[in-house]
This record gives sequence, structure tokens and C-alpha cells, in this order.
Amino acid sequence: MFNFSFHNPTRILFGEGQIANLTPLLPKGSKILLTYGGGSIKQNGVYEQVIKALAGFDVTEFAGIEPNPAYETCMKAVEIVKQQGIDFILAVGGGSVVDGSKFIAAAACYDGDGWDILTRQTKVKKAIPLACVLTLPATGTESNSGSVITRYSTKQKLSFMSPHVYPQFAVLDPTVTYSLPPRQIANGAVDAYVHIIEQYLTYPVQAAVQDRFAEGLLLTLLEYGPKSLAHPTNYDVRANLMWAATMALNGLIGVGVPQDWATHMIGHELTALYGLDHAQTLAIVLPALLQQQRTQKRDKLLQYGRRVFGLEHQDEERLIDEAISHTRAFFEQMGVPTRMADYGIQADAVDKLVAQLEKNHLVKIGEHGDITADVVRAILKAAL
Amino acid sequence: MFNFSFHNPTRILFGEGQIANLTPLLPKGSKILLTYGGGSIKQNGVYEQVIKALAGFDVTEFAGIEPNPAYETCMKAVEIVKQQGIDFILAVGGGSVVDGSKFIAAAACYDGDGWDILTRQTKVKKAIPLACVLTLPATGTESNSGSVITRYSTKQKLSFMSPHVYPQFAVLDPTVTYSLPPRQIANGAVDAYVHIIEQYLTYPVQAAVQDRFAEGLLLTLLEYGPKSLAHPTNYDVRANLMWAATMALNGLIGVGVPQDWATHMIGHELTALYGLDHAQTLAIVLPALLQQQRTQKRDKLLQYGRRVFGLEHQDEERLIDEAISHTRAFFEQMGVPTRMADYGIQADAVDKLVAQLEKNHLVKIGEHGDITADVVRAILKAAL
Repeated sequence: MFNFSFHNPTRILFGEGQIANLTPLLPKGSKILLTYGGGSIKQNGVYEQVIKALAGFDVTEFAGIEPNPAYETCMKAVEIVKQQGIDFILAVGGGSVVDGSKFIAAAACYDGDGWDILTRQTKVKKAIPLACVLTLPATGTESNSGSVITRYSTKQKLSFMSPHVYPQFAVLDPTVTYSLPPRQIANGAVDAYVHIIEQYLTYPVQAAVQDRFAEGLLLTLLEYGPKSLAHPTNYDVRANLMWAATMALNGLIGVGVPQDWATHMIGHELTALYGLDHAQTLAIVLPALLQQQRTQKRDKLLQYGRRVFGLEHQDEERLIDEAISHTRAFFEQMGVPTRMADYGIQADAVDKLVAQLEKNHLVKIGEHGDITADVVRAILKAAL
Repeated sequence: MFNFSFHNPTRILFGEGQIANLTPLLPKGSKILLTYGGGSIKQNGVYEQVIKALAGFDVTEFAGIEPNPAYETCMKAVEIVKQQGIDFILAVGGGSVVDGSKFIAAAACYDGDGWDILTRQTKVKKAIPLACVLTLPATGTESNSGSVITRYSTKQKLSFMSPHVYPQFAVLDPTVTYSLPPRQIANGAVDAYVHIIEQYLTYPVQAAVQDRFAEGLLLTLLEYGPKSLAHPTNYDVRANLMWAATMALNGLIGVGVPQDWATHMIGHELTALYGLDHAQTLAIVLPALLQQQRTQKRDKLLQYGRRVFGLEHQDEERLIDEAISHTRAFFEQMGVPTRMADYGIQADAVDKLVAQLEKNHLVKIGEHGDITADVVRAILKAAL
């Protein structure tokens, strides 16, 4: 196990009706920016619950943070924060609204061009305190320090991390997910599953607890992902999906272990160039990447096959093949196709995607830094 | 799953050499009380590392916090804190030193008799900030809000919990455990195992993640507990034991689920009256308690047997019997006997222990509140 430092300061309020309990967690007298997305919170009752909990506070609303939140949109909110002296941001929505709000919080405390934060030309030294009411279990951003932002004018999707943007609290009420379209639930389960894999499926470092926790979360998603589609208003089903997605990326299972975020990095370019849903890109890239890297990931692929899928073959090559095909089958079962062709993307995309990764200096990725441009090309060809 | 609120603010510094990295985590200019136990830290190099990390700070030492820390000892430290204007406590030791230091931190901010905190006649409103360097993986106190204190004059062992006594940081360096006597390692593994069981083995509430995490920690202790005795200087073995013990009682696996702390409560009386090691009392009580409560705990006993011990019998009664006997066998394998007779305690102890529980108003315990004085009597008779 590697040495590590772990600190997750986000308070979780979990369960039905918890939105009403956020009021005492807000700093008294705050000027609050309430951020949200396309307005679905006005149809499902979440907006009313939040407004009620904010009674007595000075609240400014900022709507319209889109899926794969845009740098351009967020910078408009940054102006409002600066002009109005906002001192707390409450994000109400899914991962995109929370990610956008984290970027707003950081960029509002930076005098230069906010894009510098994403190109990592500046380090975040301060941010407006923020919190969130999560409406979509998926990204884990509700209790981590990361954020992903897209600049549409240059087709760049980049991320930043800072301890200053951990939400101070996150409200997770499973009932607010009941009205989500099946596609968003499916995407969320796939996203969370891949987050776990990227912290787990590398090489063994004798990190027993992290491995068992990762496997436990994968088993939970395999069980409750399909149930979430079949029984959209079953409280316990949605509760387990939601808590698993949060635990998948709050930092805990990733302490002291190697990580491989290549699937996310390659996937980001697929979204930036072709507009695919984030989870769709992961479902395309991951199975092909696991096949390509099966030698480097051999020991963990075997462990994954045995402990998560209960495979018992003597033939280890067959066991690895089945572990990968079970992974693909789970994504397909969730209704997320796993081939580029399923989304109408042709072979000419391969070189464009590789060129985009090269432009963003992401050409030695994976836990060994051995996923070069050529390896990415091979992965993408296998995913056509 | 039940609603819950979860917030664990303790920063973990994990790994070899991490004591040297605590310096920047101390508030500048602090007047520090350095608390420790019987002085073993002066033999194994921990004391020197800590003193080096504290260079430049105003440090007062308070040694002699004993196993099952005494109220009387802690109150001496409270006087020092008040007289010298101490504003930070650094506890260096095992669970007893940390528990004692938490009580010191709280009692030093309370004007009345510190014992009121343990009898819960007052609520902790404030505490001196504290942190710890853990030398013994066992209790989980390094990143939770609990503390257990013994008043020897009245033979009372009582606990309190307060968010004000979470350590600000905890340094976990597995190498500092190499020199521990086998009995302490064994006790620590048993204590951690029982902590997990008490949050897991109640009745099902469809808390999939919590169950999987608990099972993962139990599997880790079953594997690494015996290895910790056999290979005392194997880094990865001790690292897994240490991290499992912390995760066992940092609150995470207990969110949203029923809990049953009856084994600890009954065990505390065994320590208070007969001076047994804390873990010895748990090893005595738990197997007898599981047998006694097998009807109420039936579903989870079956799940425990299947998932943790891989039992597959059709006969469910036999499966439950084996799950319990495997639990007993693990404690025995760790060198911790599981019968009162093994410690020379006779049948006359039963009524004395029940009377002590009644005196402390602990007579309707367990997840259903159905472990009455009569049920405790039956458990203790079965544990003779």
C-alpha cells in the first residue's frame, strides 16, 4: 500500500426529506447564489423544497448550467458572484451543476482568466464556500474536490481539483431521483461503475480494504443498477444506487493505490468532439482498454473476475475474457451501447481523437504511463 | 436504509515516516500537551520522531495514561491544561491514550465535575483541539467522536461521544506497531472485528454498501489478523490491519443501519469488575450473545455465514451454528480465549455483572432494546 493523506470534509445529509434540514448548515446572513440546470427541479418539487429551506436568506438564482457544463456559461455566473458579493453557492442538480458551481466558486476568487484553472496554469488558492443538493447519482462530485468543464469554442473538456471546492455539505435524498429519465439513471450507474474500476483495476499493492470496498461497490451497482431501471420509485433501490455512486468517488477507495484515469481522459475527447453523454464514452472505451491492457492488469483482472463475477475457470485467459465481457454486458443491460458504431461514429474518428489527446498533452496515461498515442489508437480501433 | 447525517473531519496521514509530516498540521504557536502512556514510545523510536516534529512548539508532557484510562489520571491532566493555558493536545499511543486525551480535552472546557460528561448529565459544548499519533490498531478512536473512561473508585466504565473531540488529524504509521506484544495486536484485531459485527449483525435494512463494506473489513481481519501475529514486521500485513481497524469504527459502516452495542456494554462491566483486557471481554460475550439472539439476528447471521465464511449449507440452523463457531474460532486463533472460565471467573460473577449493568441503567440494550437483565444473565451463563 502506498502512503496517503485522506481528508474528506463534506457532511452528508442522506435520506427522504433531508432538504429541509440544510438550513442550519448555511452560514448565517449569507448572500447565496442558487445554481441549477435546465429547470427540471421546478417540475419535481425540489425547487420548492430548496426555496423553503432558504427562507430568510438573500438568494440570487443562476439557472441554465448545461450537461457537460460550459466554461462560457460558468463565467457569466462568476461575474454575478463578483458583482453581487455572493458569499455562498448552493448547487441544486446533478454532477454538471455541481461541477460548474465548483468552477464558479474557484474562478470568482481568481483575478486572471478562469480558464487558467483548467489548464492548470494557476493553482486554486481560495474559493467561495459551496454546498449542494444532489438530484442525480453519478459523478461523486457532491463529496469530492474535482470538477470537469468544457470550452465549446475550442472543443476542450478539462478538469481541476482543489481542496477548496469540497462541498461543505451534500444533501442526498433518493426520492428526488424518482422522476429522472431512465437514460440519466443508466448513465449515472455506468459512470460510477467506471470510477470504481479506474481506482481498482490496475495492479495489486496489497491494499486489502480498498480492494474489498471497491468490489463491494461494484457488486452493489451490478445488483441495484438494473433494479433502478426496473423499479424507479423503490426507495431502497434508489438509496443504494445513490450511496454507492457517492462512495465510488469520494476519495476513500482510491487512497494508497495506483489509479488509471485513461478511460475518462479518452472519453472526455469523445464528448468534446462528438457530443456523446459522458457515460456513453466510458462504456465505449473501458472494455476495449481492459482488453488492450490485459497483460499489465492481469492480476487485478483475475481478482475482479473471481470476486465480482464469481468466475472460477482454471483457464485464466478465458476468465479475463469473461470478466471483460461481463463488464460490457452490464453496460448494455443498463441500455448504454458499447461500440462507437452504435452512436454513428466512424473509423475516421480515431485519428481525430488521438490528435485531440495530443493537443491536451494526455499521451502517456494509465497507471504505468504506458498508454501512449499508439495505444490509444489501438483501443479506439477495437471500440469501433 | 435509515436517514443519516455523516461527517468525519479527521485527516488521516497514513504510512511509514508520516510522523514527520504532522508539523504543518499543528496550529502555529500552539501550547501543546503531549500525552502518552507507560513509556513504550520511548523504546520504539516514536517519542523521538514526535519530539522532532514538535520542534519550536511549547510542549508540556503528560505521561502515564493507563490501559482503560482512569478518570482520576485524566483529571490531573485537566488541571495542567487549565493552569498552563494549553490550546492543543497531541495524544501519542493506543486507544486508551487517545480516549483519555479526548476526555481531558472536553473536561478542560467544562466548569463542573468532569464525571458529569460520562454520566451524560452535561453535553460537551467545547473541547481543546486534539490530534493523535496512533501506535496500536484497535479501537478506531483515532478518527471518531467517542471515548471510554473508567472510574476505578466506583468500578464504573462509561463512554461519551461528541463531535468536538474528533481528532483533527491522525498519523497511522504501520511500522510503529512492529514492536507491540502479540497480545496487544491480538486484542486490537478482536476489538475491531467486534466493532464491525456490532454495526452489521442486527437485522437487514437493505443497506447494501454498508453491508458489503462491513463484510470486506471482516474478511480483511480474518486474513490479516493471524498474519499480523505470524509476520510482525511485514509492512503490508500491518498496514491492512491498521487501516481495517480505523475503518471499522470511523462511523462509515454504521450510517443508516441499526446497531447493537450490547457486547461492548456487557464487556465493559467485565473489565470494570475483573480487570480483563477489553478485547478479552468481547471474545467472551459475543459468541454467547449471537447464540442467545439468533432468532432476532437470523437473516443477518445467514448473510454473515454465507458472505464472510462462504458457508453453503441447506440447513440454515447448522449454517448459523457454524457462523458463530467460526467467529469463536477466529478469536481463539488470535490467542484470545472465549470463556469466562479461561480467565478464572466463576458462576457467581453472573449476578454481579447484571447488578452492575442495572446500576448503570444498561438493561434494555441491543438493536431491539430486548436484551434485558434476564437476557444478559442467560448470555453470561452460556459464556462461563
